[in-house]
Amino acid sequence: MSLLPAVVSDLIDQFAKLPGVGPRSAERLTFFVLRNPEATATGLGNALLNLEGKLMYCEQCHNLAEDAICTVCANHKRDRTLLAIVEEPLDVVAVENTGHYRGLYHVLGGAISPLDGIGPDKLNIKDLVVRIEKEGIKEIILATNPSTEGEATAMYIKRFLAGTPVDVSRLARGLPVGGDLEYADQVTLGRALTGRQAF
Amino acid sequence: MSLLPAVVSDLIDQFAKLPGVGPRSAERLTFFVLRNPEATATGLGNALLNLEGKLMYCEQCHNLAEDAICTVCANHKRDRTLLAIVEEPLDVVAVENTGHYRGLYHVLGGAISPLDGIGPDKLNIKDLVVRIEKEGIKEIILATNPSTEGEATAMYIKRFLAGTPVDVSRLARGLPVGGDLEYADQVTLGRALTGRQAF
Repeated sequence: MSLLPAVVSDLIDQFAKLPGVGPRSAERLTFFVLRNPEATATGLGNALLNLEGKLMYCEQCHNLAEDAICTVCANHKRDRTLLAIVEEPLDVVAVENTGHYRGLYHVLGGAISPLDGIGPDKLNIKDLVVRIEKEGIKEIILATNPSTEGEATAMYIKRFLAGTPVDVSRLARGLPVGGDLEYADQVTLGRALTGRQAF
Repeated sequence: MSLLPAVVSDLIDQFAKLPGVGPRSAERLTFFVLRNPEATATGLGNALLNLEGKLMYCEQCHNLAEDAICTVCANHKRDRTLLAIVEEPLDVVAVENTGHYRGLYHVLGGAISPLDGIGPDKLNIKDLVVRIEKEGIKEIILATNPSTEGEATAMYIKRFLAGTPVDVSRLARGLPVGGDLEYADQVTLGRALTGRQAF
């Protein structure tokens, strides 16, 4: 790689740090950027450096925000007794896009994953009890991912909230809409059977 | 996307401009970067912005360079009568890595592709004749890609150099080493038959 100028091999190394980008993809991305340095390099470079300083997290729900309070928490038309607990800010976007939810959110900042060294103390769980008391939350929807880590996190939070007078529910697990029974994995199909609904 | 701060949605848009990165991958990359903004965003951002100004092309062969002349052209141990014509600077790295080539290079900056509006006049072809006369080049290896565009470019250059007293060869096309006859496509196998070598 000493054949390439230091600025170029440095860019390849930086691209290769991204998830799902191997050494070959990093070279491809770099040479794509080299073909139009003004258009791509400057745009992406500035967008990345802009994050520093301008990026904030909502003081209330830990969602990404441009002010101290995010747009959802600042919206007084939302149902302030209902709280959805999600792992990441992108999950807020996903739930909002359904158009079926009018409550507030609480972003954990990840899921419990002992293998990655992420325990409950690294997530935004402690201030949940404070929020529940202070804001008068009546119902909590555990909207963590239906993965092992997400289930473990949901279970932990359910136990953590055992003493508080709040209804706790979990997102329904079952067959995805548009899916095919034949191709559903056995765990999903098992969940769909256990959680069958009156029709 | 109005749920996300402008700096975040801007970064998603910028990532989505990269080849092979769709809207979902762009979101995934952005949220990966958001988890460690200091480590990733600053490193990649600076690497991208560093390109501006610091990036040069060799005056002689149009390869990427840190000075007016690239490391290959500046190396006086190379065979200066032998010239390999390649499409991109990355092809120089690929040929160098084989360890089988000791001549100089000429980087075209792409291949002829009428569909993309790239004609011979947009490539570094004109100064080839000047180089051949001035530098006393005796042999030229057409090392463009074995694709339709690469073949067309090689053919064009061969005709372009028809009047000059220089030996022109093309990289051998055939079965890739470690490949399987059964799975070779018919064009490759046909080329391997036509170009069979004494054994």
